[in-house]
Amino acid sequence: MGADHVARLTSRISGARVAVLNDYVTEKAEELAAGIPGCRAVADPLDAIADPDVDAVLLATPGPTHEKQLLACLEQRKPVLCEKPLTTDVETSLEVVRREAETGIRLIQVGFMRRFDDEYVQLKSLIDGGELGNPLVLHCVHRNPVVPAHFDSAMTVRDSLVHEVDVTRFLFGEEITDIQIVTPTPNSLAPEGLSDPQIAIMKTASGRHVDVELFVTTGVAYEVRTELVAEKGSAMIGLDVGLVRKAAPGIWGGTSTPSFKERFGRAYDAEVQRWVDAVRRGAETGDYTDGPGAWDGYAASAVCEAGVQALQSGQPVAVSLVDRASIPGA
Amino acid sequence: MGADHVARLTSRISGARVAVLNDYVTEKAEELAAGIPGCRAVADPLDAIADPDVDAVLLATPGPTHEKQLLACLEQRKPVLCEKPLTTDVETSLEVVRREAETGIRLIQVGFMRRFDDEYVQLKSLIDGGELGNPLVLHCVHRNPVVPAHFDSAMTVRDSLVHEVDVTRFLFGEEITDIQIVTPTPNSLAPEGLSDPQIAIMKTASGRHVDVELFVTTGVAYEVRTELVAEKGSAMIGLDVGLVRKAAPGIWGGTSTPSFKERFGRAYDAEVQRWVDAVRRGAETGDYTDGPGAWDGYAASAVCEAGVQALQSGQPVAVSLVDRASIPGA
Amino acid sequence: MGADHVARLTSRISGARVAVLNDYVTEKAEELAAGIPGCRAVADPLDAIADPDVDAVLLATPGPTHEKQLLACLEQRKPVLCEKPLTTDVETSLEVVRREAETGIRLIQVGFMRRFDDEYVQLKSLIDGGELGNPLVLHCVHRNPVVPAHFDSAMTVRDSLVHEVDVTRFLFGEEITDIQIVTPTPNSLAPEGLSDPQIAIMKTASGRHVDVELFVTTGVAYEVRTELVAEKGSAMIGLDVGLVRKAAPGIWGGTSTPSFKERFGRAYDAEVQRWVDAVRRGAETGDYTDGPGAWDGYAASAVCEAGVQALQSGQPVAVSLVDRASIPGA
Amino acid sequence: MGADHVARLTSRISGARVAVLNDYVTEKAEELAAGIPGCRAVADPLDAIADPDVDAVLLATPGPTHEKQLLACLEQRKPVLCEKPLTTDVETSLEVVRREAETGIRLIQVGFMRRFDDEYVQLKSLIDGGELGNPLVLHCVHRNPVVPAHFDSAMTVRDSLVHEVDVTRFLFGEEITDIQIVTPTPNSLAPEGLSDPQIAIMKTASGRHVDVELFVTTGVAYEVRTELVAEKGSAMIGLDVGLVRKAAPGIWGGTSTPSFKERFGRAYDAEVQRWVDAVRRGAETGDYTDGPGAWDGYAASAVCEAGVQALQSGQPVAVSLVDRASIPGA
Repeated sequence: MGADHVARLTSRISGARVAVLNDYVTEKAEELAAGIPGCRAVADPLDAIADPDVDAVLLATPGPTHEKQLLACLEQRKPVLCEKPLTTDVETSLEVVRREAETGIRLIQVGFMRRFDDEYVQLKSLIDGGELGNPLVLHCVHRNPVVPAHFDSAMTVRDSLVHEVDVTRFLFGEEITDIQIVTPTPNSLAPEGLSDPQIAIMKTASGRHVDVELFVTTGVAYEVRTELVAEKGSAMIGLDVGLVRKAAPGIWGGTSTPSFKERFGRAYDAEVQRWVDAVRRGAETGDYTDGPGAWDGYAASAVCEAGVQALQSGQPVAVSLVDRASIPGA
Repeated sequence: MGADHVARLTSRISGARVAVLNDYVTEKAEELAAGIPGCRAVADPLDAIADPDVDAVLLATPGPTHEKQLLACLEQRKPVLCEKPLTTDVETSLEVVRREAETGIRLIQVGFMRRFDDEYVQLKSLIDGGELGNPLVLHCVHRNPVVPAHFDSAMTVRDSLVHEVDVTRFLFGEEITDIQIVTPTPNSLAPEGLSDPQIAIMKTASGRHVDVELFVTTGVAYEVRTELVAEKGSAMIGLDVGLVRKAAPGIWGGTSTPSFKERFGRAYDAEVQRWVDAVRRGAETGDYTDGPGAWDGYAASAVCEAGVQALQSGQPVAVSLVDRASIPGA
Repeated sequence: MGADHVARLTSRISGARVAVLNDYVTEKAEELAAGIPGCRAVADPLDAIADPDVDAVLLATPGPTHEKQLLACLEQRKPVLCEKPLTTDVETSLEVVRREAETGIRLIQVGFMRRFDDEYVQLKSLIDGGELGNPLVLHCVHRNPVVPAHFDSAMTVRDSLVHEVDVTRFLFGEEITDIQIVTPTPNSLAPEGLSDPQIAIMKTASGRHVDVELFVTTGVAYEVRTELVAEKGSAMIGLDVGLVRKAAPGIWGGTSTPSFKERFGRAYDAEVQRWVDAVRRGAETGDYTDGPGAWDGYAASAVCEAGVQALQSGQPVAVSLVDRASIPGA
Repeated sequence: MGADHVARLTSRISGARVAVLNDYVTEKAEELAAGIPGCRAVADPLDAIADPDVDAVLLATPGPTHEKQLLACLEQRKPVLCEKPLTTDVETSLEVVRREAETGIRLIQVGFMRRFDDEYVQLKSLIDGGELGNPLVLHCVHRNPVVPAHFDSAMTVRDSLVHEVDVTRFLFGEEITDIQIVTPTPNSLAPEGLSDPQIAIMKTASGRHVDVELFVTTGVAYEVRTELVAEKGSAMIGLDVGLVRKAAPGIWGGTSTPSFKERFGRAYDAEVQRWVDAVRRGAETGDYTDGPGAWDGYAASAVCEAGVQALQSGQPVAVSLVDRASIPGA
């Protein structure tokens, strides 16, 4: 996860650079840092946090080390993005809340990344827009094809359910007050010591109902699905087809795309990013492109020009291209 | 489009910065440049291309100016990403091809961004993987809800069909040799002078068939769809549900998600980007977060801890949280 | 419901005819009977059951009358299809079971019609086929747009949940041993006295888990959905798209159609039924058809013949038809 | 096809019975007739048509025999449902049209069964309802996994395309005036002599465009799809998900189900038909049921009664059933 975030900050995120790296395994941090201009490894996590070159901290260390490191960040007044969990128990989590509150500034963000997922964001704004009326029920499914060998029944709650806990709080904007866990006939293919699947049943402050199927040894696919049931309709995400709503009598369906900007926005980003990367490599490779070249532009022109003739005549028109081999280098 | 690319380079693309801006309307370039640190406007496009601060050129100028500007880029040996069309006619396009070939380096990339779209990339690798056998036919649909007032029948070919021309060449890896345009009963809601819809029928060098419905005044949605028909199956993209294939007897379906990295990769990017942006604004706002905070981490811990108890007891367990108001600033 | 069944037996079901009709409102039965050749109304339901012209009984009377009528059927040794519920309480239901068992023949069928629904039948055979391994969990949704004014919370259980009770027993082939009902925040649009939605949580003899959302005032649509989660995959029905399964890693999808018999079997039935009906009316109407006629056959021939020429020439071919008006009566 | 229709008339269609059977292979007709009460085989097709026991004729004989048999039906004034083609060439088809017109009554119906398919009927009423405005274009796909060994290129037109010819005429309500056939790179897996796929391009009287992909050796599935493009929206059928429309800006989707009658109407038909069949077999089998029995009704009652208690208490309630084995015969 740490290495993933380093790659993200280095090549996909603008406005930040990785100045200092720390890892429990020092060699790993050093190796990684060596590949990043202006980056160095620091052996002690608290030294890394305190380093004057560090403006902000992205914490992807093991949960049990979070408390101490978060408090160090608070002391240094350094903003921190902390992968979940905040800490590994309620008391220390509450202590972190109190200590941040004492600083008077919001410095800690927790890595519940679903709040940034397009479909959850759509679902949230569908709720907030009021079109579906008061939300009443959430049905959630959280399935993993496989989990590591040491995974046990409590980890299903702490590592998997925790996401639906945050999703519930995010979507409903209120606290969860009651929880019950049902353990049905276990999957005979699950490892010893893991009761799988589990069904969590939660109630929120205002009385809304949430159920979550947690099934982490399906052998099939990663599947995270949330269905909202509200007074005037329902909507589901995670069904491999975008948000599907059932809100007006007579029709069910998804959202259609208003323009090419929505449809191809990400393709434009990818195109420009890959071009920028190719240009930076170009002096070395002699190729400053990573995509369609001038010949492709020429060939497209030739077909379109023939197309315009065909439009006028209504007859088939042959496309004529010069022989590509006649232009060495094209 | 130019402003879009500036925003992209400034805030979503890593490894590049906008040093020089040019626009036909000088004031527009100046205003835009003023908002970007280290960026300035240059009045003449050829001066901008020649500017020593410019390493590479992103050309989003009107088509008729492309030829001259592309040749300037070649002369200056500056890599250029040129929005389509390469130039507005076949002869000048070919001239550009020849002139680039003479430089001996690949400097020109053309902005056919569909080659970077996830679904087209998936379709391309499905073809190249050979699973579906030899591709035989493409059915394409290209629909716009509305077009500008000056749009005419030839623009349907030059501005819309051109994308499917490139898609065909990209997917099939060969040239198009014949084209025919059918103009059926026109949409009575289309503007005067625009024959809409049009059906383009194309043949490739090896004899494959491509048909394209071009309908630019649907009033409904932006809809770009491509169905590939091959010897051993077919696959469709653009149906609002990802790539759908029909390849094995007995089942149709889409691709399921193997892990959270595929499912939530973009959410992680968005999360980190928004956090980086919040941190940079933090000194001003006193808030270095843009997402779930410490309280959210604490509340999730509390629910999960109650969940672990519920798992053990099988009974409903109440979740206890301290009163948030008792911690000013939390 | 009774009138529906009469229409069904009279016009869509072969091998049975309606000989005797009974209704609490005698006039209604008489009116209905008058429209059916060889059918008469009988005022007393027990007389109707005992009538020597009656070979078998279809019971669509109110639930509270079922016990007495079922026992009469058993006494008369007449087969009976009884709309649910069997009787309105457990004791009398059990008594009916005992009395039928004493006859030594199976005479009573209960109207749980979902067992005959294509999608449930497919789901059942998917389970029985063993492809998905041991079934573990069912998630059910049962939504009505609206219910009659007198509907109360207990009716949700007795009239709606009862279907999922039978579906569970049908799919899992075992009894239900425990049930819990959660009543979340109620829909403010539901009538006084109706707690809606309700969530039923059931456990079966072998420990499988079933949850059912019952929501009978959605205002949107009739929606009955069942998702099966098994050791090796999951499958969902009722999603407006047929059975969708997720069983092999890498793909999700539905069942594709092997041949025209599966695709158009029902169309053939409808075609022949409507033709039979038209023929029976023909002496009166002078029209023995209800569908495409000879001209349609001729026109299709003419197009196909032109098509065969077009196949040979590769060129567009005009289709020539005689002027239909030149053949009076065609 | 003939045997299929016999089974249909005998067991699924009400209001008709098979009185006389004819087949080129006399033994086949005799064997089939033996299994149907009151039915006999007649060796000569014209004798069968003339038979006084025959009120109406269902013609599923080979195409080349249709002309003579249809004329015999007309002469006898017997209604006839004739499987396509009407006759095997345009001249004889026209002759049949003329001869029927001379009788002054409509006696001939042609077996274009798609007009009776739910999805085509929906598409037709969507067009006729005017919601989508003037229809402009049809895109059709007609795919078979495999065809018989003797299938040749012209049969693709005569046997496959003929359905889309009728669909076009049915949906648009006008004649087809022009046709063109494109034969792209052939499927290398198709048999010698069969050019497959073929693309048919048709124009209707008012200028509408229709294209049809005919691909009869896909090896995958039977797939018949029709997309209508109209002035104010588009709709597609045959996509394994019912009719999907794209008509209002912002949403795409299918039709949701208003009530249980639409959702389970066919299940009711199947239930009652199977019960009728079981009752007729009952004297022999001692079992007058084919579906859930009294025990199932009792078990459902018991669960619902416990459910009502659970509703009141909010706690899990155990369901108690008597031991089924204690009631021999239950």
